[in-house]
Amino acid sequence: MKKLNIGLVGFGTVGAGVARIILEDADSIAARSGVRLNLKAVCDIDTTTDRGVALPSGGLSDRVEAVLDDPEVDVVVELVGGTTFAKKVITKALDRGKQVVTANKAVLARHGGELFEHAAKCERSISFEASVCGVVPIIRAIRDGYVGTEITQIMGIVNGTCNYVLTRMTEDGASYEQALKSAQDRGYAESDPSLDVDGGDSAHKLAVLARLAFAEDVEFEHIHVEGIRDIGPIDIQFGAEMGYVPKLLAIGKRVGGELDLRVHPVFLPRQHPLAAVGGAFNAVWLRGEASGDTMHYGRGAGQMPGATAVVSDLVDVGLGRAAINAGAFAALRGGLPKAAVRNIADIETHYYLHFRVLDRPGVLSAISGVLGSKGISIASARQQEQSSERDVPIVMVTHLGREGDVTAALKEIDALEVVKQKTRLIRIER
Amino acid sequence: MKKLNIGLVGFGTVGAGVARIILEDADSIAARSGVRLNLKAVCDIDTTTDRGVALPSGGLSDRVEAVLDDPEVDVVVELVGGTTFAKKVITKALDRGKQVVTANKAVLARHGGELFEHAAKCERSISFEASVCGVVPIIRAIRDGYVGTEITQIMGIVNGTCNYVLTRMTEDGASYEQALKSAQDRGYAESDPSLDVDGGDSAHKLAVLARLAFAEDVEFEHIHVEGIRDIGPIDIQFGAEMGYVPKLLAIGKRVGGELDLRVHPVFLPRQHPLAAVGGAFNAVWLRGEASGDTMHYGRGAGQMPGATAVVSDLVDVGLGRAAINAGAFAALRGGLPKAAVRNIADIETHYYLHFRVLDRPGVLSAISGVLGSKGISIASARQQEQSSERDVPIVMVTHLGREGDVTAALKEIDALEVVKQKTRLIRIER
Repeated sequence: MKKLNIGLVGFGTVGAGVARIILEDADSIAARSGVRLNLKAVCDIDTTTDRGVALPSGGLSDRVEAVLDDPEVDVVVELVGGTTFAKKVITKALDRGKQVVTANKAVLARHGGELFEHAAKCERSISFEASVCGVVPIIRAIRDGYVGTEITQIMGIVNGTCNYVLTRMTEDGASYEQALKSAQDRGYAESDPSLDVDGGDSAHKLAVLARLAFAEDVEFEHIHVEGIRDIGPIDIQFGAEMGYVPKLLAIGKRVGGELDLRVHPVFLPRQHPLAAVGGAFNAVWLRGEASGDTMHYGRGAGQMPGATAVVSDLVDVGLGRAAINAGAFAALRGGLPKAAVRNIADIETHYYLHFRVLDRPGVLSAISGVLGSKGISIASARQQEQSSERDVPIVMVTHLGREGDVTAALKEIDALEVVKQKTRLIRIER
Repeated sequence: MKKLNIGLVGFGTVGAGVARIILEDADSIAARSGVRLNLKAVCDIDTTTDRGVALPSGGLSDRVEAVLDDPEVDVVVELVGGTTFAKKVITKALDRGKQVVTANKAVLARHGGELFEHAAKCERSISFEASVCGVVPIIRAIRDGYVGTEITQIMGIVNGTCNYVLTRMTEDGASYEQALKSAQDRGYAESDPSLDVDGGDSAHKLAVLARLAFAEDVEFEHIHVEGIRDIGPIDIQFGAEMGYVPKLLAIGKRVGGELDLRVHPVFLPRQHPLAAVGGAFNAVWLRGEASGDTMHYGRGAGQMPGATAVVSDLVDVGLGRAAINAGAFAALRGGLPKAAVRNIADIETHYYLHFRVLDRPGVLSAISGVLGSKGISIASARQQEQSSERDVPIVMVTHLGREGDVTAALKEIDALEVVKQKTRLIRIER
């Protein structure tokens, strides 16, 4: 029986969940996996809040050194979040010969290359199953399950807050503000929801997934990011009438020698496997050359789902598999080639376009004329019934088009006298 | 770089796919994972059919000894299927110090306990990712991803043939015979489809999943198995009107000290994640105490999906992880406790009941009276519009009920003079 001494840095929601699993279930995990998890040291700046977990003697320290300097700690679990301090914790833990487990997508997205390189130099491992999609074992699915295939495409619903908000807007007809309030009331959204609703969190996770799936080092700033603040109920309604469901997706595609990496709202056909992923659930859909289309689904956040993912990494460390992985997999070492990320103007996809125009003869012809002049062809168009005094909606779906051409066309169209509002655009993935 | 010499026993569809991946992608897999796969020996009783893969010198032997006796072969991939010969191949390979990879659910369902015990004695591993759900890495998801939680429930669509047939019946209104013919035309069903449509293949996979998820040794004959031959288009239609989708499910639940293990057609609410799994796709839905609800989805059969799963196991072997797993995980050694499988009469679930009765006053009251006398309460009932000269349909959905009580009630009901046909029953899972 292998015994693993664990040090937790950060004793918030997920940290308390990890402690609870270790304290309550160490026996059954040992019986199942042959690894005995032992909680050796825990630190957090907040030492007073009751987390509902009775730590063993030694208890909770407010000093990170109580964990990092403990010679008996085999593995440091970094759960502080953020980038600056977390990076220091991970680096020091590796320096001191500890293995590392982290749930921190931000630090991996911003400093992953450097951290993995440092781990390789220290001959130690960084495991990060909890960093993307919580309980869903998507990291090991890509690394281990699909090792025999080239992954060509990733589409992920990787932020539960956004998915909850969009689900409420779709199913209940709620406004963005109402849906966000509901998410906050249920604890799915922070009081400052920016990192979630503006897409930053999803982009962090995309960077982590892309490193693993494409074995390239992604410069985080090269990922195109749009959030969900601007999606209107009317577009959700028009989309629904056309068979589409809105999702905030993290998208990664290999396109020739480039990677197409972006986070933005998308219309998905209702029959797409991701379209059925509702509420606070997460899912990652993958396309592989040999594996075809696959999807992995589960809770992306929350105490016990996150803690389950951390514990899965701890067992990896305890069995020695984490060390093997760190030495063997290109994506887990530093020195990956830098990804050439495709400019958003050069991507190709389908577009939902919602024009607000004066109800006059020739308007449809004018708009489609501009689109045609830029090489954008129209798959379907409809003048929506709903009218107002000022303008009427025209909704179009395009065939595959280059985004730069669409943007150029919209600039011309929005300058037409008959067009009364900025045209709304939602990309369609299939 | 670790080099792994591979011997294939069985060069059919999946075997040829494995060979193709190794021959074409060994370089990229080595770059990705640090393991160089090398195809050393291949055997099959059919040495003449062209599989579209050019084997290296040595080629294809018709003698299994050409693989088993090759001292340079590190790992034997058993792809012959069936139980008797496959068991011999696996046993001999272990005896000769080879690691084993297999896609064979039948042999694991029937002889798993014995084979894993033998592997432990030989200090070798048996890897079997390809045995359930083809490309979907469900084995490692349960073993590794959810190691920190107690799995309490499994529901799997694990047979692509049945799922294709039921999807055609649901979406196109096809009869069972038409849908099966379509499956055969597309190569999704064998000319003798019994093992698929009668549920045996799903039961094999359930036995494999249950061993892993519940760490108990399942006597295969204890699994209750029903196939899809008796599902009628009219029940699919009535179900659809009530918001249900028909699926053949492999179900495993921990219920007190027993396991509830069964394979049969089920009505699922349309919003259940498994309900959207259509055509020849497979998916396994899991419920874990800490992990909550998760689902893994992808192609369950086919050359490249199956081969991808085998290759994932080969990399496990090459990295030494398979050996670590075999030594550490209780479910991968012999000597597991025997599962106490709950008698089908003692399970509790919801029931869809379709009665064919004479259109007379008092019939509904008579039927509900019998149900009530057995403690079965009715959640909803409707007399369907559709009529015929002979009888009219009444459809009921029950609250949670014990199957033995339902069976006893139906026996009485079917004996009523006003009931004209045997009542049809479809279990409902939620």
